[in-house]
Amino acid sequence: MKIDVLTLFPEMFPGVFHSSILKKAQENNAVHYRAINFRSYANNKHQSVDDTPYGGGAGMLLMPQPLFSAVEAIKEEGNDPHVVMMCPQGTPFTQKKAANLATKKHLVLICGHYEGYDERVREHLADEEISIGDYILTGGELGAMVVLDAVTRLLPGVLGNAESAVTESFENGRLEHPHYTRPAEFQGHHVPDVLLSGHHLNINEWRKKEAFLRTVKRRPDLLESYPPSPEEDRWLQEMKKNDKTS
Amino acid sequence: MKIDVLTLFPEMFPGVFHSSILKKAQENNAVHYRAINFRSYANNKHQSVDDTPYGGGAGMLLMPQPLFSAVEAIKEEGNDPHVVMMCPQGTPFTQKKAANLATKKHLVLICGHYEGYDERVREHLADEEISIGDYILTGGELGAMVVLDAVTRLLPGVLGNAESAVTESFENGRLEHPHYTRPAEFQGHHVPDVLLSGHHLNINEWRKKEAFLRTVKRRPDLLESYPPSPEEDRWLQEMKKNDKTS
Repeated sequence: MKIDVLTLFPEMFPGVFHSSILKKAQENNAVHYRAINFRSYANNKHQSVDDTPYGGGAGMLLMPQPLFSAVEAIKEEGNDPHVVMMCPQGTPFTQKKAANLATKKHLVLICGHYEGYDERVREHLADEEISIGDYILTGGELGAMVVLDAVTRLLPGVLGNAESAVTESFENGRLEHPHYTRPAEFQGHHVPDVLLSGHHLNINEWRKKEAFLRTVKRRPDLLESYPPSPEEDRWLQEMKKNDKTS
Repeated sequence: MKIDVLTLFPEMFPGVFHSSILKKAQENNAVHYRAINFRSYANNKHQSVDDTPYGGGAGMLLMPQPLFSAVEAIKEEGNDPHVVMMCPQGTPFTQKKAANLATKKHLVLICGHYEGYDERVREHLADEEISIGDYILTGGELGAMVVLDAVTRLLPGVLGNAESAVTESFENGRLEHPHYTRPAEFQGHHVPDVLLSGHHLNINEWRKKEAFLRTVKRRPDLLESYPPSPEEDRWLQEMKKNDKTS
């Protein structure tokens, strides 16, 4: 897979491209990244990329020409890239969307940077718009990093077994159960006895129950898309009874 | 404000710290960032930071000791830092949370990295846990960048007027209206006439209406927390009528 980022701040990317799993994924040829400065595609004398808004107002806007030309140049390489605009007004990014993007051969991620986009970029250049969350960031760059990390992890051959396991646990719509490692006692805080018992059935049951109760407590919204199993329903009743008597 | 990131991949951060608004914010002494490798606080011979989970299972877990020691060392500098754990199970990050964190004097952002955390980090070291969205990332690093960008933008003296304007538009619970800049015609696509009319009342009305209708269409969930004004209700009725007749 190829992932190209169109940005005015390509210097933000090498540190991320060359660390950890993203680095390994490139070394294994599972993915190839580029951070391309679309300013180099501006066809005006001063390589301007922005201008004031029609109708007045504060701030500058990204002009259509440099972005259209940059995407056109990428298209000429022969792939049929899927063009994503990073944008606070886009569809909220989810793990499901990451899985969908991971099926593409070539992604182009367009990053605005505090200025807005000319509407024609949205309407006639982007195949879709994605937002990574309801918060305001300086530009699309961090969003693009999030998308390319989440997508890369899903490509064949990128993750070892250990990391894949973590992925699966989230996909069932439950938060993870608590984890403990050495030492068994740290600053007076002990690892739960069941985890030291060696009794695997009990350990499994404890983990499933803790994962479910944590989800109920912290992210009840996840129960709407992933309703409780009969076993989980029992734990829920139990919890409610305990809350009443305590 | 001070923001320290505890990470095993400090090399991911300089490109982000030294670009655009975050760079300027540091030059103006509005904020001071550090990316600290908590491996250097591991008190074992091989500077290990992880170990296998009690009770069995795939993957490795971050041990409590290196993280506790790293936070302790930061506390010894005399501030009373607010410790945030980046974690998929945390409270979803929002603009409101960014505003809340921007009131702190010193933030410490802890990044796990595909391994999970020992539960005692969560229970006894972190003041809170934050998730930037429902997708799976390789580590907390990108989340930490998101938090520090969103927070830094809210510090006094960091943003100019142009960028502040953008911030406000989102805070009313409405997406932004479409923007256009030069040229008035690009590849056959024209800027709407009203924006070229010079009639400011009409331009304002058009923008408010477009912003509202875009919110209805793309993010109806925002209407729950920010219900329509009487004017917006009228636009909604109008839209429904048009949908029926078309």
